[in-house]
Amino acid sequence: MTNAYQRKKQPERVRQQLLDVAARLSLEQGIAAVTLEKVSQAAGVSKGGLLHHFPNKLALLDGLFDELIGRFDRAIEAAMADDEVDQGRFTRAYLTVCFALDAEAEGQGWRVLTIALLAEPHLKARWREWVERRSGEFAATDGSPNCLLARFAADGIWLADLMQSHDIDASARTVLLRKLKALSLQ
Amino acid sequence: MTNAYQRKKQPERVRQQLLDVAARLSLEQGIAAVTLEKVSQAAGVSKGGLLHHFPNKLALLDGLFDELIGRFDRAIEAAMADDEVDQGRFTRAYLTVCFALDAEAEGQGWRVLTIALLAEPHLKARWREWVERRSGEFAATDGSPNCLLARFAADGIWLADLMQSHDIDASARTVLLRKLKALSLQ
Repeated sequence: MTNAYQRKKQPERVRQQLLDVAARLSLEQGIAAVTLEKVSQAAGVSKGGLLHHFPNKLALLDGLFDELIGRFDRAIEAAMADDEVDQGRFTRAYLTVCFALDAEAEGQGWRVLTIALLAEPHLKARWREWVERRSGEFAATDGSPNCLLARFAADGIWLADLMQSHDIDASARTVLLRKLKALSLQ
Repeated sequence: MTNAYQRKKQPERVRQQLLDVAARLSLEQGIAAVTLEKVSQAAGVSKGGLLHHFPNKLALLDGLFDELIGRFDRAIEAAMADDEVDQGRFTRAYLTVCFALDAEAEGQGWRVLTIALLAEPHLKARWREWVERRSGEFAATDGSPNCLLARFAADGIWLADLMQSHDIDASARTVLLRKLKALSLQ
């Protein structure tokens, strides 16, 4: 039973390991320099094993993007589950997740990887789809100009964190987050 | 007199031409692929002539950054000159310039070049210096959390324009700009 379970889980673990290695190589060398060959070697997985999961580099980048978007979606869902007010709930969750990213030690790595992936036209289009789908899904509760502004401000802070362009200490961040959450209710 | 004037102006024109070519090549091929050799050939300027203005690639990238920041500063100054209210004047000018960039046909090219340049650690540090200097300079009039939020929202919209991630029509943009300018006065 245990062996069957492990065997069933094995491909998923290999897939995850390949993605972790691809993420690390992308950060170290830039996405353009990442090849299937390098990922297969660095992960200690045969080229055939890699091709089973990712038939080409585009599939690998899609896999990385799925991973990032999946984490983002799950974090947003978790934050929404803690919020009992309908109006602006998605926006407050979006704010919470964007602001929390900074606290994670690995936050900067994810930001760098995200902006690098978004340089790919295909993934830029997928991000556009995500924005459109979520904006439609939460139009009734989060469609106001104030909610849109609050989310744009969160994106601006995300960009500032990526560029390390602003010195915002923890208490100033708390003030900004509180103000933006208030805006989502106006 | 005319000839002396032209001779004096000539080096400045060559420098500008080299920067224009470097900007175009950076957009077409990516900054990493741009070499002094390629710029000198594409501009039809001798390698010696190029080296007179830009002794190495870093100096060339610095020149491109100076050009972008110079345009940004001049646009902000012009917008500030039209505004008679002290409180939030820098923030409103920053908003006006960020929102206006979209209207320019060449706006997208400048955005792509900016984000590509900001991937260079040295230029990221120079952007940080700009933010710190301006924040200090206008602390008395634009230091409130509301002004900071408004500028972050403008950065978020700049990022959305770069990524082409949001469909915001002209009238929605006008509403957002009006709301953010109002925020700079609160």
